[in-house]
Amino acid sequence: MSRIEVLDEGAVLSLMTEDAQRLRFHAIWLRDNAWDAQTRSPSNGQRLIALRDIPAATRIGSAQLDGDKVQILFQPENKSVSYQVDWLVNNAYDRKTEIAPGWTPSEIETWGADFSGQEPSASYGDVHDNPDALRDWLAGIARYGFGRLTDGPVEELALMKVVDLFGHVRETNYGRNFEVRTEVNPSNLAYTGLGLQAHTDNPYRDPVPTIQVLYCLESSAAGGDNMVVDGFAAAQRLRRENSGWFDLLTRYCARFEYAGSKGVVLRSRRPMIELSPDGQLTAVRFNNRSAAALTDVPFEHMDDYYAAYRRLGEIIDDPSMEVTFRLDPGECFIVDNTRVLHARKAYSGTGSRWLQGCYADLDGLHSTLASLQAENQSGAR
Amino acid sequence: MSRIEVLDEGAVLSLMTEDAQRLRFHAIWLRDNAWDAQTRSPSNGQRLIALRDIPAATRIGSAQLDGDKVQILFQPENKSVSYQVDWLVNNAYDRKTEIAPGWTPSEIETWGADFSGQEPSASYGDVHDNPDALRDWLAGIARYGFGRLTDGPVEELALMKVVDLFGHVRETNYGRNFEVRTEVNPSNLAYTGLGLQAHTDNPYRDPVPTIQVLYCLESSAAGGDNMVVDGFAAAQRLRRENSGWFDLLTRYCARFEYAGSKGVVLRSRRPMIELSPDGQLTAVRFNNRSAAALTDVPFEHMDDYYAAYRRLGEIIDDPSMEVTFRLDPGECFIVDNTRVLHARKAYSGTGSRWLQGCYADLDGLHSTLASLQAENQSGAR
Repeated sequence: MSRIEVLDEGAVLSLMTEDAQRLRFHAIWLRDNAWDAQTRSPSNGQRLIALRDIPAATRIGSAQLDGDKVQILFQPENKSVSYQVDWLVNNAYDRKTEIAPGWTPSEIETWGADFSGQEPSASYGDVHDNPDALRDWLAGIARYGFGRLTDGPVEELALMKVVDLFGHVRETNYGRNFEVRTEVNPSNLAYTGLGLQAHTDNPYRDPVPTIQVLYCLESSAAGGDNMVVDGFAAAQRLRRENSGWFDLLTRYCARFEYAGSKGVVLRSRRPMIELSPDGQLTAVRFNNRSAAALTDVPFEHMDDYYAAYRRLGEIIDDPSMEVTFRLDPGECFIVDNTRVLHARKAYSGTGSRWLQGCYADLDGLHSTLASLQAENQSGAR
Repeated sequence: MSRIEVLDEGAVLSLMTEDAQRLRFHAIWLRDNAWDAQTRSPSNGQRLIALRDIPAATRIGSAQLDGDKVQILFQPENKSVSYQVDWLVNNAYDRKTEIAPGWTPSEIETWGADFSGQEPSASYGDVHDNPDALRDWLAGIARYGFGRLTDGPVEELALMKVVDLFGHVRETNYGRNFEVRTEVNPSNLAYTGLGLQAHTDNPYRDPVPTIQVLYCLESSAAGGDNMVVDGFAAAQRLRRENSGWFDLLTRYCARFEYAGSKGVVLRSRRPMIELSPDGQLTAVRFNNRSAAALTDVPFEHMDDYYAAYRRLGEIIDDPSMEVTFRLDPGECFIVDNTRVLHARKAYSGTGSRWLQGCYADLDGLHSTLASLQAENQSGAR
């Protein structure tokens, strides 16, 4: 049985939960988060008032526990509002949380090479026709930062149908989509044989595209496999190895630039490892091709910064970090471009390879996923 | 006359500039930023090698000053690279920079109500036909965070022509554009008369749309003026008034949510005032309608956080912060949605108002601007 108590002359509500957790809530927080029809629109949930409409001196006049609800009378408004105990418990902020920089929420799972074969994968027809299959596939991408799709149409712009499953294309100066064509023949085998270092795309763009889709339409050359590396796993490994180096890559901004086409001069100033102000790992940017001169690292830290940058690259290059797979026509993969680096391995034979790529954004994917999950929960009732 | 010196057994180059500044550069930084054809693509400027291709023990074997160039021989590669002295000076990182949190770069100018009438404004025909006019108008938007355009076509989707001037539409679940229609008649005058508090759009989206365009097609009601507030000016004023409150709004994430349409559940976790890791003011998020329960502020700071949030709102509501203007058909305004808040004032008469809105992104605008500026410089030579 829960218990409640009003503390501090009405400034605070204390809720003792059934499992003896004490959760305190401020009167102003409770009032701001009221869900009555005058505070929140019953139709779309938007708040109808602003903080300026709530008295600064808001206090709890009285509070009563009634089953699974708490009824609170706020003064000086003399306004009565009811709260679900469950809602209060789920939104409680009275917790001790000491978390080390670089933390990730429980919805995220990092991975290395041994994840190979377990990556979120589905057939296009399934996710297209079956909302449960779509939900599970999107949940995998949200958790692991990438996913594969097989058995899709082998036709130009099929990748747009993939984006339609969850969101919207981010158009850029490259257009709504771009072409990745490679003819592998003996004369350029040496060049293409170099492969590409794993990278995130377009770090010179701000906001950076948060999703990339790469869709295969032709693939007759041996080799040229795709690989992905979990940038969050790489950043956390760097922190375990040398937390000072990790701090340097989070504390100072790098610079990225691309000015390779007419009319295009893209520049950004962002750290290689980005944290929220409370230390959550939110993005990794790593791209040797578009890294510009570092001008925001103080002289006395530059040597160590370069050592950290070098080590992060070595970790990214470590085969124990990578998951490799081959894309055949009608197959594609999606990466969270704020987290997962991707690359193309070297070719070992001649032929051609044609991919189409496009960018999209995570907000659409997370929204579609959350909506499918909510439908599922209400369906189960 | 500049002078150079090799220090620390080849680890550092010291450049004494004509105005007697001593600028030091690390050997590894210099080698990484070489612009020779083996390091950087002569055609598109992309780096062709990765840090892993540069020896960790890179040292300056010898260095010579030759007019406006420094010639460096790197060991152990035995590689000779030439640098423009100007380029080194412009990219120097050997500076003491102690800057207070909330700083903005010199390209940014904050403003208040007395800016009224001086805002970046141009006629659609001018910026469409004249690259210099477009450059100046975009430079104003980059500097002040908003701009107006007049004398545009009064036709549906004219706003797309505005976006075409500088970038690309960010499509969302609201579509490529959205409608803002208001019929003001005596029965709903009370409601529309409330006006809207100044806000940034879609803070529940991550990445947030960084540009919003609002384009007027009909405007027959008296009142309903548009107003904008410089969120950077508001944040800096809060810091001057109470730096502890400013710190609270930067240090802890707020939460935003919108789930008002079928299939849409958008949620974000970002601070109301966002700083880069080195303290640059990078974004403001403020929106009473979509602010969700704050669950990331520790209990002991929640009361002060609410006081800070309330004060930021009061500053935003202060008429001395706002610039107000009326949009007539064929007129539009653009805001940097990471910086400038916008609102609609109350109506004072009946009639109708029809705006079309869309989102776009700052990277396209900054790229177009930088490209126009570069063309201008090369044209002037």
